[in-house]
Amino acid sequence: MIPAPVEPFAAVDVIVAKRDHGELSDAQIDWVIDAYTRGAVADEQMASLAMAVLLNGMSSRETSRWTAAMIASGERMDFSALSRPTADKHSTGGVGDKITLPLAPLVAACGVAVPQLSGRGLGHTGGTLDKLESIPGWRASLSNAEMLAILEEVGAVVCAAGEHLAPADRKLYSLRDVTGTVESIPLIASSIMSKKIAEGTGALVLDVKVGSGAFMKDIDRADELARTMVALGEDAGVRTVAILSSMDTPLGLTAGNALEVAESVDVLAGGGPRDVVELTLVLAREMLAAAGVDNVDPADRLADGSAMDAWRRMIRAQGGDPDAALPVARESHSVAAPSTGVLSRLDALGVGIAAWRLGAGRARKEDPVSAGAGVVMHAKPGDTVRAGDPLMTLHADSADRFPGALEALAGAVSVDPAPGAGPPRAVGSAHPRTPLVLARIAG
Amino acid sequence: MIPAPVEPFAAVDVIVAKRDHGELSDAQIDWVIDAYTRGAVADEQMASLAMAVLLNGMSSRETSRWTAAMIASGERMDFSALSRPTADKHSTGGVGDKITLPLAPLVAACGVAVPQLSGRGLGHTGGTLDKLESIPGWRASLSNAEMLAILEEVGAVVCAAGEHLAPADRKLYSLRDVTGTVESIPLIASSIMSKKIAEGTGALVLDVKVGSGAFMKDIDRADELARTMVALGEDAGVRTVAILSSMDTPLGLTAGNALEVAESVDVLAGGGPRDVVELTLVLAREMLAAAGVDNVDPADRLADGSAMDAWRRMIRAQGGDPDAALPVARESHSVAAPSTGVLSRLDALGVGIAAWRLGAGRARKEDPVSAGAGVVMHAKPGDTVRAGDPLMTLHADSADRFPGALEALAGAVSVDPAPGAGPPRAVGSAHPRTPLVLARIAG
Repeated sequence: MIPAPVEPFAAVDVIVAKRDHGELSDAQIDWVIDAYTRGAVADEQMASLAMAVLLNGMSSRETSRWTAAMIASGERMDFSALSRPTADKHSTGGVGDKITLPLAPLVAACGVAVPQLSGRGLGHTGGTLDKLESIPGWRASLSNAEMLAILEEVGAVVCAAGEHLAPADRKLYSLRDVTGTVESIPLIASSIMSKKIAEGTGALVLDVKVGSGAFMKDIDRADELARTMVALGEDAGVRTVAILSSMDTPLGLTAGNALEVAESVDVLAGGGPRDVVELTLVLAREMLAAAGVDNVDPADRLADGSAMDAWRRMIRAQGGDPDAALPVARESHSVAAPSTGVLSRLDALGVGIAAWRLGAGRARKEDPVSAGAGVVMHAKPGDTVRAGDPLMTLHADSADRFPGALEALAGAVSVDPAPGAGPPRAVGSAHPRTPLVLARIAG
Repeated sequence: MIPAPVEPFAAVDVIVAKRDHGELSDAQIDWVIDAYTRGAVADEQMASLAMAVLLNGMSSRETSRWTAAMIASGERMDFSALSRPTADKHSTGGVGDKITLPLAPLVAACGVAVPQLSGRGLGHTGGTLDKLESIPGWRASLSNAEMLAILEEVGAVVCAAGEHLAPADRKLYSLRDVTGTVESIPLIASSIMSKKIAEGTGALVLDVKVGSGAFMKDIDRADELARTMVALGEDAGVRTVAILSSMDTPLGLTAGNALEVAESVDVLAGGGPRDVVELTLVLAREMLAAAGVDNVDPADRLADGSAMDAWRRMIRAQGGDPDAALPVARESHSVAAPSTGVLSRLDALGVGIAAWRLGAGRARKEDPVSAGAGVVMHAKPGDTVRAGDPLMTLHADSADRFPGALEALAGAVSVDPAPGAGPPRAVGSAHPRTPLVLARIAG
């Protein structure tokens, strides 16, 4: 019989220290994360601690140690034996955010390897793995050896994070989800960064979304989150840069799994929506710079077809057929523009919830998603629309999905009368176009 | 198959409302307490909510509704059919606090019935049931019918609270104990008052302890707790009065189960330590006044032996033999006064922990207690002591208990040199004697 370990702390004392506005010691943090992972600290104890952290905060030292303890709960991958530098990107999640799909092969085509461990979608933002799984044959689960081989041969791999990376974070993340303790900057930052650092990337670019469709609704909180994550990355020896980008309206013209794959392929073919191309290039340049590569312009690799070649090799390496037809939803429903004028608002959250209700997302981890479901937009803010013309097309496997989606879209669209038409309006009342990239934060 | 109830709220939304400094609605409180009791709200969710309540507080309306919801989780007893009024007393817990033992029969002898549902001790304060169980034959568990019959015939009953009274509180109390969420005035007040109101007493006197040996170390927090509880009682139609009493030094000269029973019998016989007699009479007068009885002086009932008669009938009604010899611990150890002078401090917490370590208390709910173990004090603050004379006698079933108890007592004793003896000292440095009753709070 193996004797139970003698615990150096009592969970209640650690909780009470944080509850009473104290700073936790390194030893307390190391212990509580380890003990929670092995079950010696109970879920109800960690939930109480998480609420105390959310309400009373953690210092940068505590957050850094908390992150290190979560990394130490599992395996830390190491790609230093690869023949090229590595860089990864993480987005805090937005509607229509398919950027990883064109970005990973583009950066690979520029000579930097992209080892991206991704998640599935929950709620109104889609998951990269869900999107790629709409490609016939493509599989998300790889062994470490397969991952390393693909990285060496293709230069980009997007796959599911295994059980071995930051298991403490996996357990804590599920707990926070049901205990109202998600919205804590130290807990969000340590969750994201523990996974990304454990993943072994040499450089990391963070795309922190701000706006109605993002987790962070206001720029001050987004800025604080970005600065916290950049500091955690640099502390751990990972060159880290963050950009803040707007998520008031969806990225591109599609929200839905196969729909977004098709749009990403358009971008790789040299077309695609302007905002998706712009953000892909901004992030690619940041990844290359962070990885120390400054002799190549990613726009050239997009233009010369080498990014598309890398995409095809990346999809094939994971069993997918890049030439196969993508799944199409059985039913569609057209949404008309309500009036004539300039589309001033197409709300990201409304479109995200609509796509989710159409079947593109899941409410619980174990729910399946529909590959073909989602929203195709025919105009973006700033475009002129005419009353009655199609503004969006909804796609779903069953027509009974449409009423819920339409309800989510009810308040999501605003059309300003075109200048000279309709009643006179005050100068400056037209919706200004938000720039896509709002700020850049480096260590 | 019974379908699962459709829940009107999500636990996360209730937690987030309190986390974000909102007030919970009556419907939210009713639901969360009921759903927690039946398991639809998980321990980790209630722990997170409890921490949010502790840090962000509850309004008096929320606390009142929270209490009502915990009462509604079980049975509410009703003694309105009794031939006399009812009054109960609750102490927040102190060292040597045996007051219930002489008080209950004394009040019964004055014509007011005392239906006291009590608990067992945990930590350094003793439990009333543990004390009474040192009387051979006495049993704490009674049916409701037995309880009612004893109340009618004897006028006083002290027994274990059944599973049927405020089960939500029972579950929440255990959870708070392990999640660092004990020290919240709304949660403490609602826990105490839900049990006492469900118990069905017509009037209630609260003895809120303040000082080193009490749960409340400072008088402002004790005052706030007392006012909160008085308001909850009055809201629920129970005439409620609180007194604040000092717990810097133990009550009486004994701390330990059988030791305290013997001291209580001394008080009922017309003797006993001055402070125990004083507090017993103060509380008895409050209970009688709260129950509307103003034509009898409890001091007379103590003097004429009728309180002792009620005690003997009360013990016999629950199977105990009031004439049986009480258990005596096998080992004893004498502690000498460290110097000659006036005993200025005999710290309640130190004595309480010593008694606990000697075997009088338990560290976990399932631990047994020793009937004979404890501390007998031979002097109290204000008394003159001589170096080397016995100051305390420790009692335990095994001599290996003494070192831990002595360690707890190491800093618990201060002796000031008697006036005229020893080196000169500053005027006013002698320890002032704290009054026993510090304040009275009525609705």
